[in-house]
Amino acid sequence: MNQTTAAILIIGDEILSGKTEEKNAKFLISELRDLGVSLRLITVVPDDIDQIGTTLSDLSKRFTYVFTSGGVGPTHDDVTLLGVCKAFNTKMHRHPEIELALRNYFGDKLQETHLRMAEVPQGSIFIKVAELRWPILSYQNVYIFPGVPEFFKQKFTAIKERFRASEFYLKLIFTKQDEFDIADHLTQVAKDYAQVSIGSYPVFDREDYKVKVTIESKDSQATESAFNMLISLFDKNQIVRSE
Amino acid sequence: MNQTTAAILIIGDEILSGKTEEKNAKFLISELRDLGVSLRLITVVPDDIDQIGTTLSDLSKRFTYVFTSGGVGPTHDDVTLLGVCKAFNTKMHRHPEIELALRNYFGDKLQETHLRMAEVPQGSIFIKVAELRWPILSYQNVYIFPGVPEFFKQKFTAIKERFRASEFYLKLIFTKQDEFDIADHLTQVAKDYAQVSIGSYPVFDREDYKVKVTIESKDSQATESAFNMLISLFDKNQIVRSE
Repeated sequence: MNQTTAAILIIGDEILSGKTEEKNAKFLISELRDLGVSLRLITVVPDDIDQIGTTLSDLSKRFTYVFTSGGVGPTHDDVTLLGVCKAFNTKMHRHPEIELALRNYFGDKLQETHLRMAEVPQGSIFIKVAELRWPILSYQNVYIFPGVPEFFKQKFTAIKERFRASEFYLKLIFTKQDEFDIADHLTQVAKDYAQVSIGSYPVFDREDYKVKVTIESKDSQATESAFNMLISLFDKNQIVRSE
Repeated sequence: MNQTTAAILIIGDEILSGKTEEKNAKFLISELRDLGVSLRLITVVPDDIDQIGTTLSDLSKRFTYVFTSGGVGPTHDDVTLLGVCKAFNTKMHRHPEIELALRNYFGDKLQETHLRMAEVPQGSIFIKVAELRWPILSYQNVYIFPGVPEFFKQKFTAIKERFRASEFYLKLIFTKQDEFDIADHLTQVAKDYAQVSIGSYPVFDREDYKVKVTIESKDSQATESAFNMLISLFDKNQIVRSE
């Protein structure tokens, strides 16, 4: 089945060195899930043009959407857009419409450094949203967001409906059997229902169950059938709950 | 300067689909920082042998250490070790010493699925630690940890001192100037002190300062000099604090 897929690219030395806690991937994981988009990769890279470029070039080819976070301010360590240029073999240029908007916004307080915010890769698309002052920048299937969590959230939320895909169907089984006892059953059902993702997650800090089994796909019937097959294979007396 | 570098590879559909919150990368970011190891990449991938293999092969060549989290249990979705085989062009085999330990531990309750825990890539190294029942598995510069946070933490902590490198020196400046006003100063100092990482982090939810500037390297003198140069370039009346 052709799924709508996504990757997240987080950019910033401050995340890797522990100076700033990453929050945007966590937010986006939950949003993409609700939207029915299958998130396939998250990568966190430093403020390095080559690494951003190589990564973006790869991700853009492999996934339906790529979402970036960080590195879009006016200082020397903001190199995401140079990375986009590297990835897509294009150059920065000053976008006349954004320049005009900046001149109007800053008026006689305008500095040369403000105008850096109008420098974008040639070929960029601006997505204008009525409720936001500044448009959202994209390049082909790459959507470029700021790292500051409140702005990231605001901008993503403003355009999220354009990414909506069909929903996921998820069933759960909680059992007191341990993973060793159900491993062969899981293997069998995973083989019989290749389009359904079966996950097995042991817990060690609870009294009520030992393993949570997840059964998931975009096909409600296949999900239901795989679930029923697992229920029939597991030890019924050990199943604590299923839903 | 040759630095000790690291990458983290998080393996698991459950992280990407939002079923489980990732905690090991967060823990390891802070640990590696304290150890003086420069973390350069974090990647989260699904339970997919090819993708784990390709990623591990790449990371193992580029960084001093690679730490993996997840995918090492006995069920069909635990494919990290198969990924290691793919990355290093080796095969799984049953390790006699681990098999014996498993037979002793499980006694007459031993099942065939238990013995899967003795299946490891040929060429693996077991790191034995007195206080842990099971050894820690590694392959060349790749260290393989379980995804369950309490076990990850326990195992990493048991061997962390072997990764210790020289410490980082960090200086900070908090200013009321905004990024546009200091951008050129930052660029200049970043150019003059190429071995020092200069970071600029605007905040929008505080009254007391607008930008936090970080100055960091493994060379205390270069860090100090870059810090002093920035202090001399910034507007003194707008510096709230430096440390």
